[in-house]
Formats: sequence, structure tokens, C-alpha cells
Amino acid sequence: MPPIVCIVGASNSGKTTFLEKLIPELNRRGYQIGTIKHDAHGFEMDREGKDTWKHRKAGAHTVAISSPSQVATIRQTGGELELDELVGRYFWDEDLVLTEGYKRSHRPKIEVFRTEIEAQPICGPEDNLIALVTDDLSAAQVPVFRFDEVGRVADLIETRFLKERRKPDILLRMDGRKLPVNEFVGEFLVGTIRGMLSTLRGWKEPQTIDIHIQLKEK
Amino acid sequence: MPPIVCIVGASNSGKTTFLEKLIPELNRRGYQIGTIKHDAHGFEMDREGKDTWKHRKAGAHTVAISSPSQVATIRQTGGELELDELVGRYFWDEDLVLTEGYKRSHRPKIEVFRTEIEAQPICGPEDNLIALVTDDLSAAQVPVFRFDEVGRVADLIETRFLKERRKPDILLRMDGRKLPVNEFVGEFLVGTIRGMLSTLRGWKEPQTIDIHIQLKEK
Repeated sequence: MPPIVCIVGASNSGKTTFLEKLIPELNRRGYQIGTIKHDAHGFEMDREGKDTWKHRKAGAHTVAISSPSQVATIRQTGGELELDELVGRYFWDEDLVLTEGYKRSHRPKIEVFRTEIEAQPICGPEDNLIALVTDDLSAAQVPVFRFDEVGRVADLIETRFLKERRKPDILLRMDGRKLPVNEFVGEFLVGTIRGMLSTLRGWKEPQTIDIHIQLKEK
Repeated sequence: MPPIVCIVGASNSGKTTFLEKLIPELNRRGYQIGTIKHDAHGFEMDREGKDTWKHRKAGAHTVAISSPSQVATIRQTGGELELDELVGRYFWDEDLVLTEGYKRSHRPKIEVFRTEIEAQPICGPEDNLIALVTDDLSAAQVPVFRFDEVGRVADLIETRFLKERRKPDILLRMDGRKLPVNEFVGEFLVGTIRGMLSTLRGWKEPQTIDIHIQLKEK
């Protein structure tokens, strides 16, 4: 799973504007970026009258549309998906996922803090806040950057999340629910599965392995 | 992976209209349905000016938006994803995926054939055509249904694809590329992985198991 950094902040603090500068800066450095927008209220992605819209209105649970250059999907959910599940499901070849929102996640956060909007940042170090992007350069318990210091924020992200060689990492889900595994069990599973698969015709040392198993119905 | 049935036919033959009747009929029978629209030319799913649209314009490779009731994603692709990969990636708890289009796929097909549009059906039994939905009830090598016989088409789909108890099924991908496994190897892998995982705390006999492994970079 790629690393996740949450860009948080009050409404109108400038999260989207900051992301619009940060994404191209990270692209220039060679990283493929994914983004997730947290939407508390509901959104309308599709357009009325389109075929996918008609499929959905007719009762399709998930609709997808695929063209030579892009794929889009809309899935109905029985509740909000957790950030880690979203990333595990939908982001398989990105180097980094940046979110807009998700201030309640346990993932590392950068807050966009504008003094004309709020008196105080909404997050602190206890929320895994790693930096502030702000017009208030006075004392803070985390590194502070001005709105235009996109390069320095990219440096921080790169140093902390993108340059370290990642250890083998395993995400395990049963019926969509994540099963926690500790480091020892994770390494054991990765080693065993990799060992089994490496004897198969078609094996070529991969970066990722995805296995989906459908068990017999009870 | 859920079974896939492709609804094919010439332009304006009535594929979408037929799907708009077939989906609710299958919903009424208790099945959760996914759909995929094949789009040869390109589509615009997002709306100009929205935050996700801005993320994409700024260079995000995949964007997602998540609310309490739905999740949508748009992924840039270097070429058209294969139907099986699309289903493997995006449809994990549907009972059946119906496509609109994909006449060149090897998957079973139902053609909507309207004599005022075309002289001949575009598919035959050699294309894995399993039925025609048509106003031409004369001789055909496959079962023929009228446009309003949605219940009978649902019966056919149910009998052929939804009622048989599925055997354990494994989909294996390395760096997103599907690795073919024969029945013996598949059963061996499923048995071994299931056996290992069943000793973990948190195991509760699941219907599906998904494992994502990120290997060390070379």
C-alpha cells in the first residue's frame, strides 16, 4: 500500500489550492500521485441521462466506465469506507496518496492553517500532525511552511515517506474487512506466498502481488 | 471474481434500455449487480471546477471521492484495461457483472438485435453468444427472447451463472498483470493460504480473502 499523507484544515483554508501546487511538484520529482477527497455530505459525480447514470438509477451497485485513457467507477456503500480500505482497493500503483480532509484518520497530516479563518490549527502533534502550511510563522510544535513553500513541503514528504526503501508490506482482507497482522506474521506470510508463487510458470520478480480468493459458499 | 455477461449489440439497438429492465429484475431476485460501460472514445465523468477535477488537472493519476453513501474514482490508464482486470479490481462483492458493450471479449454475450437497425446480429455462437433479445423471432442458433421477456432472460442468467455453487476461485496478479493458474495449483494455493490464515486471531470463515503484498524495491 502506498504511503498516505492527509492535507487537512478548516473550510476555505486553501487545501485544494495547496494540493494543486503540491501534486505537480511531486510529479516533477517522478512520483505518481493519487488523491482522495473526503466528502461528508454526498456528491454527484455522474451526469444525468448518461448510460452509467441510467445503470445506477436502475439499481446497479457499482458502475464502471472504461475508455482507452481512463476508467471511472461509482460504488454504493453501506457506510463510509475507511481510508486504509479505500487506498488498498483503489490505489495499486501510486507512489503516494494525498487526501483532502480525513482529519480524524491516524495517518500523518499536514494542516493548511490561515489565521483569517481560524484562531487555532484544528490538529496538533497528538493527531499525527507533521507540518503546518500557514501565514502564522510564530511558534509551533511542528515544522511550519509558508503557502508558497511547496518545494520544502515536497522535500519533507519525500524524505519521510518516499525515499526510505519500503519493507515487504501485506494488506489482508476477509470479506472486505481488514485483518491486522503483526510484523512477524506478515513477513512469514509474504515469504511463504512469494516462495510458492515463484515456482509458477509466468513468475517474474514483481513489485506487487494481489490475490483474490473466492471460497465455497457455506 | 463474479460471473460476467456482456450485453452487446449495434448502436441504438437498445442495450441500455434492456439493462434498465434487467438490472431491477435481478435485484428483485436478490442479486447485487455491477455494470461496466465500454466507451471507445472517451468520457468526461467529473465536473469542471470540482475539487476532484482540480486534483486531476494538477496531475493526480487516480482521484477518489468518498462520502457516507458512495465512493467514486477516476484512474488514468496507459491503455484500455481488460474486462477481467476491471472486474477483478473494482467488483469485489457483486454477484454478477453485466457489461454494455465488449463484443470482442471471450465472455458470454447476450445480443440486443433490432431488425430496423441491422440486417444481421453482430455476434454468433462462435463469439460465445448465448441468447438474442430481438424482434426477429425466426430461426436462430441460440435462444431468442422478445424485448419484453426480461424475466426469461433473467431465468437464463440465473440458471447458467448464479445458481451453481461456486468452487474456490483464485485471481492472482503480479504488478497488475494476471498470472494464469490451473485448477490443481489454484486449489493448492487456496488451501495453503486459507490454512495459514485460519490460525490467525481475527479469522472468521470468510467468503473472500484479498491479499495485497508490496515487495521490497530492487
